[in-house]
Parts: sequence; C-alpha cells; structure tokens
Amino acid sequence: MPEISSKGRQMPASPIRKLVPFAEQAKKRGTHVIHLNIGQPDIKTPKIALDAVRNHTIEVLAYSMTEGSEEYREKIAKYYEKYHIQVTSQDIIVTTGGSEALAFVMGTIMDADDEIIIPEPFYANYNGFATAAGVNVVPIVSSLDDNFALPPIDQFEALIGPKTKAILICNPGNPTGYLYSKKEIQQLSELVKKHDLYLVADEVYREFTYDNTEHYSILEEPGLEKHAIVVDSVSKRYSMCGARIGCLVSKNKDVIQTALKFAQARLSPPTFAQIASEAALETPQSYFDAVIEEYVERRNTLVDALQKIEGVRVAIPKGAFYCVVELPVTDADDFAQWLLEKFEMDGKTVMVAPAAGFYATPGLGKNQIRIAYVLEKEQLITAVNLLAEALKHYRSL
Amino acid sequence: MPEISSKGRQMPASPIRKLVPFAEQAKKRGTHVIHLNIGQPDIKTPKIALDAVRNHTIEVLAYSMTEGSEEYREKIAKYYEKYHIQVTSQDIIVTTGGSEALAFVMGTIMDADDEIIIPEPFYANYNGFATAAGVNVVPIVSSLDDNFALPPIDQFEALIGPKTKAILICNPGNPTGYLYSKKEIQQLSELVKKHDLYLVADEVYREFTYDNTEHYSILEEPGLEKHAIVVDSVSKRYSMCGARIGCLVSKNKDVIQTALKFAQARLSPPTFAQIASEAALETPQSYFDAVIEEYVERRNTLVDALQKIEGVRVAIPKGAFYCVVELPVTDADDFAQWLLEKFEMDGKTVMVAPAAGFYATPGLGKNQIRIAYVLEKEQLITAVNLLAEALKHYRSL
Repeated sequence: MPEISSKGRQMPASPIRKLVPFAEQAKKRGTHVIHLNIGQPDIKTPKIALDAVRNHTIEVLAYSMTEGSEEYREKIAKYYEKYHIQVTSQDIIVTTGGSEALAFVMGTIMDADDEIIIPEPFYANYNGFATAAGVNVVPIVSSLDDNFALPPIDQFEALIGPKTKAILICNPGNPTGYLYSKKEIQQLSELVKKHDLYLVADEVYREFTYDNTEHYSILEEPGLEKHAIVVDSVSKRYSMCGARIGCLVSKNKDVIQTALKFAQARLSPPTFAQIASEAALETPQSYFDAVIEEYVERRNTLVDALQKIEGVRVAIPKGAFYCVVELPVTDADDFAQWLLEKFEMDGKTVMVAPAAGFYATPGLGKNQIRIAYVLEKEQLITAVNLLAEALKHYRSL
Repeated sequence: MPEISSKGRQMPASPIRKLVPFAEQAKKRGTHVIHLNIGQPDIKTPKIALDAVRNHTIEVLAYSMTEGSEEYREKIAKYYEKYHIQVTSQDIIVTTGGSEALAFVMGTIMDADDEIIIPEPFYANYNGFATAAGVNVVPIVSSLDDNFALPPIDQFEALIGPKTKAILICNPGNPTGYLYSKKEIQQLSELVKKHDLYLVADEVYREFTYDNTEHYSILEEPGLEKHAIVVDSVSKRYSMCGARIGCLVSKNKDVIQTALKFAQARLSPPTFAQIASEAALETPQSYFDAVIEEYVERRNTLVDALQKIEGVRVAIPKGAFYCVVELPVTDADDFAQWLLEKFEMDGKTVMVAPAAGFYATPGLGKNQIRIAYVLEKEQLITAVNLLAEALKHYRSL
C-alpha cells in the first residue's frame, strides 16, 4: 500500500474536530448544544451583497482575472483609504479567503525549514499552513495576565536566527481579542527592519474594535513598505464566511509578483463570491455601527457573567469576537469532551474550543478555552450558566 | 530588503503570461485578436445552475462543511455511478476547483524532493503545484507522431526510483486531447501496484470524448482502490470555470483523511459555487450531446483546415478541446509574439499558446503550439487562415 507523506501525517487536525462526534451524539440524545466553539457569526450578511448575486446576469461563468478584477481591486484600494492605508489596485491580489492569502504568503517568503515567529495563542490554522509549507512556527508566549499584549520586543529578538523570515501577528487577535497599540506595531516595525524580516499581519477583524480603540495597520507605518504584508478577508467583516474571498496586500512589488505566480497556478478566485464581495463594499457605516454595538454588548454580557464564576479568569477582548478563558480545571480537552458526553442541564449543554490547539508550545493553554461570542446575549447567558453548573459537577468528580 | 523564497523565484509563470502585454498592445492598435490560447469555453453555462444561484435564499452566508455538504457529495457519488464508478460521499472532498484538489493530493502523498512521473506535454500548472510543494516532476515524453499515446510502460518503469511516489495523467489530456484506452490504464495500474505508487488522474474532461470512444476512469479499475486518486472539476463540464468547484476522489481512506486535514486549514469551499454546482448535476444529457456535437464539428473544422497548411502537423484529439500543432518554425514563442506584435490581416491576428510551457524537458515543444477549439467554427476558420498567411510571411523574413 502506498504511503501518506510525512507532511500529511504531521498536518494538525482542527482542535475542535475530535469533539465533533461527541457533539453529534449529544444531539442524537436530544440535548441542545450551544456552540461557543466556532467563529461563524449569526449576524446577517448585508442585503446589498446577497442581492448582487441574486441579480447576476452571467451567461457563461468564466474565469475571472487571476489577481481579481481590476474594478474590484480598485474599490478595495478605496476601502483601505478610509483606514488611512494608501495602496493601489496593483498592490492587491484577490484570494480565495484569507486562508489562500496566507498560503501564498508562506510560499512567497519562506522555504522549507524556514522559521516564522508567532505570538501564541494564535489562530490554529496557522499551524496547518506552516506544516503544509514545511515551515517551522517559532512561538512566543503572550499571557492572559496582561490580556495577551505583545510580548517584550527583546524576547522576539532573542528568537531571531538565520532561518527566521517573518513575524506573523493577528490584529485584532483570534483567539485573544487583543488589539495591538500603535506603539506595539512600531516596535515590531523597528525589529523587522533591523533584521530584514517580513511583518505579516492578519487584519481580518480590522473593523471589530471596541471601547473607542482604533486599529493601526502595519500598512500605515511609514518606512515599512518592503516588509509589510497584510492578509485580509471579507468573511467576518460582512458576515460572509461562505464567500471565500480575501486578499493579500503589499507595497513590495517582488512579493506581489511572486504571489501572483502562485495565484496563476490556481487560475482565479470564485466569480460569484467576488460579485458579492464587490457589492459588500457599499455596505453603509450604520451596518458596522450596529454590529459593533451588538458585539460590545455581547462581550460585556459574556465577560461579566464569566467573571462571576469562581476560579475563572478572562482576558478582556478589545477587538474581534473571541476571548480566551482560564478555567479551574487541569485539562480543558477532557472538560470539553465531558460537557458533550456526560453533562446536561434543562436538556442543554455547551461546546467550547479547548485552547491548547491555539498554542504551539506543548502543555500551554491546557486549562484554557476559547469562546466566540457570535450568539445572542440570551444564549450567551444560558451558556455561561451551563458552564458554571458544569464546572461545579466536573470538579466534584 | 527581505528576500523572496527560492521556491517563489522558481515558480513558473504562466506560458501565456508574457504574451499578454503584446496582445494588449495589439488591441490598442485596433487589431482584433482571436484567442486560440485559452481553455475558456464560449458554451453557455446550464441555466439550471445559474438560476439556482439567482434564487438563493441565504441570509447569513456561512461556512459550508470543510469537505462539502453531505447532500452535494451524495449527488456527486450518484453522478459517478453513471460512469460505472462506485464511490460514496465518504470518498469525496469538495475542493475550490480541480486546482485545489491537485494541491491537496501533492501535500497528502508527497514530501519535498519526492518525484512524480508525468507524461509530457502536460497541463502547465502541474509544474506550478509541484514547485509550490517542493516536489520534482519527472517527465516522460509522449509524441505527436502517435497522437500522444501512453509512452511504453517500460519507459515509465525505468524512471521509478526510491523518491517516486506517483504517476499523474490527464485523461482526456490537456493539451494533447489524447484519450487513454482501457488497456493503457490497465498497464499503468499494474505498474503502480507493482511499485506501490499512487496513480493520480485528472479527469476533468471526462465527458468530452469523440468518435464513439469511451472514457475509462482509474476508479473503474478493480484492485486499484488504494492507489487511485481522481482530481475532478465542474469548470469545463458545465462551462463554469469561474465557479471554482472541483473534488478529490479516492477509495483510500488514509488519503481522504489526510487530504481533509489540508482542507480544514482553508475552512470550506465557496458556498455560492457549490449551489451552482449541485444544481448543475441536474443538467440533462441533451446539453452534453449538443456540446459534444459542437466540439466534434469544431475539431474537424480546425484539424481539416490546419492539415492543409504546408509544414503543419496536428495530433488528432479524441477528447477535451485542445490540440497540439507542430508548425514549420523553430521557435513558436517568437512566432506567437510576432503574431501579436507585427502581423495582421484584415485588421485581425491570432493569439496562440506556445507549447514549450507544457513540457518539463528543456528544448521540447519549441516548434509546437496548443490550440483550444472553444470558439465558433467561423472564427476557427478565420483564425487558421490568419495562421496560414502569417506563417508565409514569418518564414520569408
């Protein structure tokens, strides 16, 4: 029998995947499972985007341009202007989700065995893309104690070696909800310039910042043009995760030209989704205002409720719609499975994402979970009540 | 300034890409360019598929399942039944185009420096995916003299070494139009079983077979279950290249489970395109009958006209909608550029794809071009007349 590649054997499974069968069994037993585990917002997609697809007049569904249509890329450049980011359509490649942008970045700037430094906990799929590219993730620990702020810059510097090609951040962060300050971005900026590295920022949650904070993009930072690469996506911005449209943005022309060769191999991004995404750019500010207000209320509701549970600690998220929660348990994996396998109250239970899968360092995050507050407040309250009750039972076992 | 990866520097550009600026200049001069260079059919997409998207009732455009919806995969399995292929939804992963299926296959079965044997000329993007995966393509020459039939099996065997993981075929072939016989597939089958290799078949042109020939899939071959991996796509089948939906099919459960981990990293295939693709499966046989009839007429028109030009040789395609044409020139790259830069007749010229980009062996295919007969007969006749006239001029330079 022919063999699976060693790369394939090393590919990490989704941190939630192993819980899925237990969730299915719970549902079969008639238990209602509240999903705190996935970042799939319940927010409605802007009607203007959905209508654009409804009203399409396509007769031959042809390939689009490899880099995305000129018109759409020009509109994206205009969108960035609103955020003080000066780019042109030539600096943008439209991709199949932020995921593909990330894969193109890995291929463009890194060879097998090269290293990329990422503050942990980080978006679990970074591991998948790194493994697929044969690239090594060098984690640097950020801590719940200070809401997962940027680790001291000398700790980054200590990790830089001859194989280091880039530092990757997610801002605001999944799973941390942390929003990097302008000063933190500038520290990173100085560091990558000093060591001739790339600074890659996953900024897909740009709009989701709370408490009068403002997002500062690496593309705003003067002098960083050759180093800065942004990964972006429409998925969360317009609650259209199923579109699968993102983009890669850089003012470094070598980066764009090289990434374009990776893009050419896969021909083009999906046409219908581009139609929706282009229309979505017309979404009025009022949509975002309402969404942000909703998320702030949800966050406050969630955090307030969690903080009332004995032994629970929460990092206060300033952006995105996740938070990392420390539980009074030793093994959140086991607890998450137990929630689905053994626990229910009033016919309900909760599914959470164990946080260990968001760390690269073995053993870290064992007593943490990630919660996505993409559900209505009432559901969040119910979910936290369930968690509180479950913890009581679980700890007395 | 930070460096581009060596992988990125090695990524091949599309064989047509360097001609694009010349085509644009020709158009600016007012010259009408007939495109024989791209496999973008002019055939209308089935209305049933386009309407399904028009009639969508989505309110939240959410992630679909990583492997594609259960319902769609079950329907795909039923589609395969019509072609004597027995698979279930569990053997199928829906992908973003055949391109992504190919990338997943490379990652699943091959590590960096592993080798994959491919008869050349082959679909140029195989080179891109191999380079992206750090994998080496080992070409085996097939010849226009016998319409690009399978090279003798002992030539394949001579190329198999410790690094060889798979043989990849495209059936029917792009760019050759060759349809492998059942006997040829069985020879390959014996060989991969003997040496414990995978046999990967790109079967995206399955329906496009002419002259009462029948496609024989590697999935029909008994005993090949652990070795056979099919890459498929809706792009050409339903003339919906812009959808970006394909699939990976294998009865080898390790292959599916591993490929699924690569799929998880990119979350899900595009939702709108899946709606169109699921509906497209209801396309009546009459659509295909009409399309096949049209392509046969186009092929006959094209081949007859080409064979009348002195010094031109054509491989007769039995499938797909491409043919490789040998021209009485020494450098088809130069000729293709000259066509766009210097030639016109009645205000028209032709764009062709130089075939060298479809070979991995340097120097091969220098006097060949690929023509895609995806245009109406009248246009094909005009295009061949232009080619004939252009060759006269070019050869007298």
